[in-house]
Amino acid sequence: MDIKTDTPVTVIGLGRMGQALAGAFLKAGHPTTVWNRTASKAAQLVSAGAQLAPTVDDALKASPLTVICVTDYPAMRQLLGGNDISLNGTTLINVTSGDSAQAREAARWAEGRGARYLDGAIMAVPPAIGTAEAVILHSGPQPDFEAHRPTLDALGTVSYLGADHGLASLYDVAGLAMMWSVLNAWLQGTALLKTAGVDAATYAPFARQIAAGVAEWLPGYAEQIDRGSFPAEVSALETDVQAMAHLIEESEAVGVNAELPKLIKAMADRGVAAGHGGEQYPVLIEEFAKPHVS
Amino acid sequence: MDIKTDTPVTVIGLGRMGQALAGAFLKAGHPTTVWNRTASKAAQLVSAGAQLAPTVDDALKASPLTVICVTDYPAMRQLLGGNDISLNGTTLINVTSGDSAQAREAARWAEGRGARYLDGAIMAVPPAIGTAEAVILHSGPQPDFEAHRPTLDALGTVSYLGADHGLASLYDVAGLAMMWSVLNAWLQGTALLKTAGVDAATYAPFARQIAAGVAEWLPGYAEQIDRGSFPAEVSALETDVQAMAHLIEESEAVGVNAELPKLIKAMADRGVAAGHGGEQYPVLIEEFAKPHVS
Ligand SMILES: NC(=O)c1ccc[n+]([C@@H]2O[C@H](COP(=O)([O-])OP(=O)(O)OC[C@H]3O[C@@H](n4cnc5c(N)ncnc54)[C@H](OP(=O)(O)O)[C@@H]3O)[C@@H](O)[C@H]2O)c1
Ligand SMILES: NC(=O)c1ccc[n+]([C@@H]2O[C@H](COP(=O)([O-])OP(=O)(O)OC[C@H]3O[C@@H](n4cnc5c(N)ncnc54)[C@H](OP(=O)(O)O)[C@@H]3O)[C@@H](O)[C@H]2O)c1
Repeated sequence: MDIKTDTPVTVIGLGRMGQALAGAFLKAGHPTTVWNRTASKAAQLVSAGAQLAPTVDDALKASPLTVICVTDYPAMRQLLGGNDISLNGTTLINVTSGDSAQAREAARWAEGRGARYLDGAIMAVPPAIGTAEAVILHSGPQPDFEAHRPTLDALGTVSYLGADHGLASLYDVAGLAMMWSVLNAWLQGTALLKTAGVDAATYAPFARQIAAGVAEWLPGYAEQIDRGSFPAEVSALETDVQAMAHLIEESEAVGVNAELPKLIKAMADRGVAAGHGGEQYPVLIEEFAKPHVS
Repeated sequence: MDIKTDTPVTVIGLGRMGQALAGAFLKAGHPTTVWNRTASKAAQLVSAGAQLAPTVDDALKASPLTVICVTDYPAMRQLLGGNDISLNGTTLINVTSGDSAQAREAARWAEGRGARYLDGAIMAVPPAIGTAEAVILHSGPQPDFEAHRPTLDALGTVSYLGADHGLASLYDVAGLAMMWSVLNAWLQGTALLKTAGVDAATYAPFARQIAAGVAEWLPGYAEQIDRGSFPAEVSALETDVQAMAHLIEESEAVGVNAELPKLIKAMADRGVAAGHGGEQYPVLIEEFAKPHVS
């Protein structure tokens, strides 16, 4: 690696997240240039050693790599779109949240203006930036990721997903869906057990064990999806549906919210109605992979 | 322990699950008596060494412990309710699926007829019975569970939850809600990634890592619920809601089902509307703990 920790880096956008990113680069020893529409937000970083660039173009020219983190993609385009701004030869990593189509379109736009472009997604809150807990996903040309990886390492656990610029956004929202789903199922269970006087701390280890256990099944279940064949090796969907009815009945009987149980059963019912009652759970990919027409 | 593996045990109900239970007791060396309404279903077990009792009463008298596993609670009551049947002095473990109210009512009924009663829930499919993978939950008087635990160990990983007979059913459905939620979130993510040509096997390890990681948060989050105080140490609910909107938009944009994302956001929106936008995710227990009035 010929890039050392004294590689300069630029951060554009100094909201809560941008400030955390710039702070982590500074802490790792990188000469760090910053720019923000509201310049006053740079004050703390400047006193910690950052250079405040007078213009966006100056900020981009100060380093081979610029990380941009603003509210949304339109803000990014507005900010970098001026005629007085050159992206030529710059490597731009955009960690602004957006969807996969926006990421692909931004890549075409930036590349059209001579930049190398990677899209990023930050699966962390600002205080976690700079620690291993902060997972930061990247997609786009692999050589550009590899070239700057030693610099990016300052931000947390960085990973590369593939050449399609849309991947970081897709993995990000998919991961969030998993996070909220585990939390919601745990809240559902906690609410159910609370009706029997069981406190949340008593129930939590059981929920943790089930979630971690089921997580281990996923790679095996994924093979069924990739083969497109779903033999009921463990259990048939129609058997699951009966237990789902128990979950709904129990929730309603003890007076807790039954919407999550009902959605679980509705998806499975559709799988059974489509003729998959004798197959195994992952066959429901067919329902998840298409929009619901109510 | 004065109970050895030659302790007799009775199994009533020889459907798919009852046959697996009786088979596991036999395999562990227990003299095993069986009874089923349709006697022919005992044939295989008898050739493996089981005793077929001529009547339910004979079956109950043959062993200090009887495990009953039939379709539902009404079937259990019909089967054991005859005037020619004595439950006096018997320990009955009912692993028939039902809800917590049915379990508590069955306990009162059986105890009123002189039995010791434990309620059980089987978190496993028949082929897993007899292996550590089969989790079997028990609730009711702890001394009765402890007295028969050495016998029950033949069935799999047995656990005791507490004196309230309703607990086994509640933990069972709560655990199932977690199982289906992890699977559904994984299917949602798999469907999203498939739109970018990523196969299920490539995505699965990421989903596994997130699910297992979030599982580790649950004990800490449970403390917030038990304290009834939800400071936004990591992230505020109103910040989550913005990312939930991204999940919905992305799902709709790439043409996958958006019902799960919408339910996730609807629950959180209600928490924000109730004034909890500045608090942390587990504050949603308030929404999960009450019925939804649409
Ligand atoms: N905070 C988190 O926990 C978190 C976690 C993961 C991802 N993210 C993502 O990171 C991005 C930034 O989040 P944040 O928390 O840092 O937001 P924030 O505190 O609201 O900061 C927004 C930033 O965008 C700038 N901006 C907005 N519109 C602009 C425009 N038209 N021209 C120039 N600059 C503009 C703002 O400049 P001014 O200071 O001049 O207003 C500010 O620097 C978002 O996409 C967010 O989804 C945040
Ligand atoms: N199979 C699983 O994967 C699984 C997993 C967890 C829990 N369970 C639970 O275990 C229980 C049994 O399931 P299973 O799969 O064994 O079902 P099954 O194969 O359909 O067997 C049902 C059993 O109940 C008996 N039965 C039903 N109504 C009766 C009545 N009125 N009087 C006497 N006997 C009656 C049947 O007797 P006949 O043979 O005479 O019809 C049979 O022995 C259910 O509560 C189920 O939810 C099953």
